[in-house]
Amino acid sequence: MGPVNYPSKLLENAVNEFSSLPGIGRKTALRLVMHLLRQDPVDVTRFGETIIKLRKEIKYCSKCHIISDEDICSICNDRLRDSSLLCVVESTQDVLAIENTRQYRGLYHVLGGIISPVDGIGPSDLNIDSLEERVKEGGINEVVFALSTTMEGDTTSYYLYRRLQKYNIKITAIARGIAIGDELEYTDEITLGRSIINRTSFVSPA
Amino acid sequence: MGPVNYPSKLLENAVNEFSSLPGIGRKTALRLVMHLLRQDPVDVTRFGETIIKLRKEIKYCSKCHIISDEDICSICNDRLRDSSLLCVVESTQDVLAIENTRQYRGLYHVLGGIISPVDGIGPSDLNIDSLEERVKEGGINEVVFALSTTMEGDTTSYYLYRRLQKYNIKITAIARGIAIGDELEYTDEITLGRSIINRTSFVSPA
Repeated sequence: MGPVNYPSKLLENAVNEFSSLPGIGRKTALRLVMHLLRQDPVDVTRFGETIIKLRKEIKYCSKCHIISDEDICSICNDRLRDSSLLCVVESTQDVLAIENTRQYRGLYHVLGGIISPVDGIGPSDLNIDSLEERVKEGGINEVVFALSTTMEGDTTSYYLYRRLQKYNIKITAIARGIAIGDELEYTDEITLGRSIINRTSFVSPA
Repeated sequence: MGPVNYPSKLLENAVNEFSSLPGIGRKTALRLVMHLLRQDPVDVTRFGETIIKLRKEIKYCSKCHIISDEDICSICNDRLRDSSLLCVVESTQDVLAIENTRQYRGLYHVLGGIISPVDGIGPSDLNIDSLEERVKEGGINEVVFALSTTMEGDTTSYYLYRRLQKYNIKITAIARGIAIGDELEYTDEITLGRSIINRTSFVSPA
């Protein structure tokens, strides 16, 4: 038995659009659509126009490739940041996640993905040439790789390392270990093993 | 520490719109927005326009108040349905849920909500006059209440019962009891108690 017919094509179209989003099934989509129907038409029109405008007008920083309304983003333009430190991430979301920690005051470079032969994504599909260009220009002392702890992430980090090692810079990667709040018993053995090898001084930084 | 600034106003606006939807937090909203950014602009424009069109052009069946593109919906217009049987529900979603069971071939009446003094929703805010009108017109033999098993649902059913009892019709309510697959041990005592009182013949209907 397939799903029932919707009593309205308008309703069905809206449910179809919402359920095309990741993690949103038809039931949730219907709930969201019913919510919109209870809102003021002005607000719903603004919702729709915001989405259209976003996709049509979105720009990326010409320096670090983060999503930006300007040609150069506010992070790259921030004179108070340490421009000798460059953190390499996969996406704009990762920049936001790191910014949220308020522990990093350097600049970023957004690759726009990671190397994934399975998905047909190679180095030339990513913002890697522009990364090397930034390093070559000089002024950068350290590049920090902050990619996912996956095979693709590790492959990408290693590829970048090979591209950048000829320059006179320090190359680092964010620490991997037991997440704060995690129980040792339930930690996978690779993470646990690495966290023993990469043990740090017990006195924590201020 | 509040949330971090978004690098783009367009991005922030879109995240704000999505996170205004029920059950969608800022992190999920960002994920949905990033998904849209990876889609074809034509598809995203269609998404936005579908939402706007839905809210602007949505209509409700003038008979049963279900969401409908026509003045009279396809259910009310279906001559194969039993027009002597009327099921009263809260919303269009509930009609879809009942239709999905394929166990009901009568008509519906959508109240558009339930009586909830806490939320300031009284009988006059719901499609109750038009329900009485339909019953008064004649041709209906049975009205089935299919409202939530909550205090508001029960209050609404009781109110409707008092409004409709003067007409020569059968008034019923959907069965309440142990859900199929539920374990007795974990069933609340009110449900369990009612299911004993309202026990049915062991031979199940074909």
